[in-house]
Amino acid sequence: MKNFICLKCSKEYGLNEPRWKCDCGNVLDIEYKYTFDISKLKNRKNNLWRYRESLPIEDDNNIISFGEGFTPLVETYYAEKKVLIKFEHLFPTGSFKDRGATVLISKIKELKIKNIVEDSSGNAGAAIAAYSAKAGIHCHIYVPEKTSKNKLVQIEMFGATLHKIPGTREDTSNAAIEASLRSFYASHSWNPFFFQGTKTFAFEIWEQLNFKAPDIIIIPTGNGTLLIGTYLGFKDLLNQKLIDKLPRLVAVQSDKCAPLYKMLLENLKDFPNLSTQETISEGIAIARPIRAKQIIEIIKESNGMIITATDEEIKNSLKDVCKMGIYLEPTSAIAFAGAKKIEFSEKDIVIIPVTGHGLKYNYQ
Amino acid sequence: MKNFICLKCSKEYGLNEPRWKCDCGNVLDIEYKYTFDISKLKNRKNNLWRYRESLPIEDDNNIISFGEGFTPLVETYYAEKKVLIKFEHLFPTGSFKDRGATVLISKIKELKIKNIVEDSSGNAGAAIAAYSAKAGIHCHIYVPEKTSKNKLVQIEMFGATLHKIPGTREDTSNAAIEASLRSFYASHSWNPFFFQGTKTFAFEIWEQLNFKAPDIIIIPTGNGTLLIGTYLGFKDLLNQKLIDKLPRLVAVQSDKCAPLYKMLLENLKDFPNLSTQETISEGIAIARPIRAKQIIEIIKESNGMIITATDEEIKNSLKDVCKMGIYLEPTSAIAFAGAKKIEFSEKDIVIIPVTGHGLKYNYQ
Repeated sequence: MKNFICLKCSKEYGLNEPRWKCDCGNVLDIEYKYTFDISKLKNRKNNLWRYRESLPIEDDNNIISFGEGFTPLVETYYAEKKVLIKFEHLFPTGSFKDRGATVLISKIKELKIKNIVEDSSGNAGAAIAAYSAKAGIHCHIYVPEKTSKNKLVQIEMFGATLHKIPGTREDTSNAAIEASLRSFYASHSWNPFFFQGTKTFAFEIWEQLNFKAPDIIIIPTGNGTLLIGTYLGFKDLLNQKLIDKLPRLVAVQSDKCAPLYKMLLENLKDFPNLSTQETISEGIAIARPIRAKQIIEIIKESNGMIITATDEEIKNSLKDVCKMGIYLEPTSAIAFAGAKKIEFSEKDIVIIPVTGHGLKYNYQ
Repeated sequence: MKNFICLKCSKEYGLNEPRWKCDCGNVLDIEYKYTFDISKLKNRKNNLWRYRESLPIEDDNNIISFGEGFTPLVETYYAEKKVLIKFEHLFPTGSFKDRGATVLISKIKELKIKNIVEDSSGNAGAAIAAYSAKAGIHCHIYVPEKTSKNKLVQIEMFGATLHKIPGTREDTSNAAIEASLRSFYASHSWNPFFFQGTKTFAFEIWEQLNFKAPDIIIIPTGNGTLLIGTYLGFKDLLNQKLIDKLPRLVAVQSDKCAPLYKMLLENLKDFPNLSTQETISEGIAIARPIRAKQIIEIIKESNGMIITATDEEIKNSLKDVCKMGIYLEPTSAIAFAGAKKIEFSEKDIVIIPVTGHGLKYNYQ
């Protein structure tokens, strides 16, 4: 069984349709059954394609890969608590978004699509642009005009056509969706193949913990690209009885743009009316995350929580972590700010990803 | 047998002396005997410390590591020739210099030294600063004032004291050596522990090629940090009869600063009198590489060569490689420019490292 399935109306579609949403307008997931054989896994190359049976690409010849993944998991102390830091910034383009891009672009190659469009606050755009370049696919990347210069230059160096859009992050999305009428929308928030890639984050942690689930994972959350992927991966492991519980997923949002936090707290059915202010965590300033409902259900199912952090707290965590010799962007530092705000014990296995490289941000 | 040995007068010293050069003023190497057991290697974690027996740190508790190394080796076509690209830019600080820094800083921790000084065109400085931060060692980093801003900011974020020196790269070295009278000189060109780290580049290639040596390795060369390490690693493998030949090492220099090229070509005993011009390959613009004699002997022994590339050729290669979805700094692009200039066949296994991340350079 391999199908798209609508999260609202449950309508199904075959995976070889060039499709990114349901006819009803809602978001899709992928239903996909597979089983891991641990003894086989152990002997494979140290990249995320080691989980080949979990990745719904039909023909190996379509795989677009730079040998990415299997990032280091480094034990350390942060704010006097033991944590494991996953170095997701050591992907080819400098962020975890390459997990999604390698799978999505492989599928787009399989579909023989030659022109795509994507919108991004920067990191997903760079990832899509890099893998498109390798695949010989032309892409148009839409970004808010205030995006960090280092990210903009990177996208252009890959040969993508860059569109800088004035206004909010939502204005950028709207411009991309309008352009997708003439091209295929390779969206990292709409397209479920992207999440099939980010789910490998869960598999790597499981394997690096000697085939166990951690207790808590703290994730910077805007569109939920990493959070949803993490859930899908651990849920698959649970269904296969390879772990005995889901880790608690802790989503951290900027207090200047925290729609998910408000929706969970106030049990809202729709987005709150936010007047988004500028925040140092540019990568997760998403006022209307299209998978909001899915994210909130995941948080509840995993017995997790959504918390917020201020720019001041993010800046302090950023300084602390850099002084530990780890170079990260402010959007990633919010997870460390979150770690200071939640309770956990010395026995708990707590994972914090460094989602994006410090080199991507224009510090001054 | 574990000793420092002078490459000129052959005087030996114990490895626990806080020492970076011979009393005669010349550079030192390390004599160190060990043997690899391939069946044991295979089951170790995917980072460069998997070659533990080859790394002369006495106590595991002194190891300062971020789980770095075992970088991807990606097969592709470049200029219509098959090559294997080693993704050395996916180290924590964005360059292969972390190989040297993890070993050197571990040794400095073992020696209980708390203050160090280093000079660098940027990447080695960032690497030393990051590992020092993790080790709780204070470092002073001396750089030419024209170094890329992204690199300067990175060094400062790690908490190092940054000294921007006007004039040539040599003026920067002189300032650092002067400062080392009051502190320990953690030099990536003088200190042989650094090369004990960069030698792991050879081991990874050997293991990734299923325990074989490649035919050719093309390396951007200034001080020779990677070239010498590569030689030391393959030489150790040859001595252990784990390979049957050395790969041919091809050093590429900027035509605007090519002392090694001139010394080999004209059989000079001393540095040529260069009027160094500015070049886009800032990381290898070294007019007087202190290990020049060693580098030239290595090139001869490996049946290799030294070639040069122009800024125009470097820029063209840079564009080509970015359009393949690989983001690199101009200094790294010179290896690809070199690949276009040498002859090799479809049968040859040719390795090109991406030595530094594109995110480290301020394009535009």
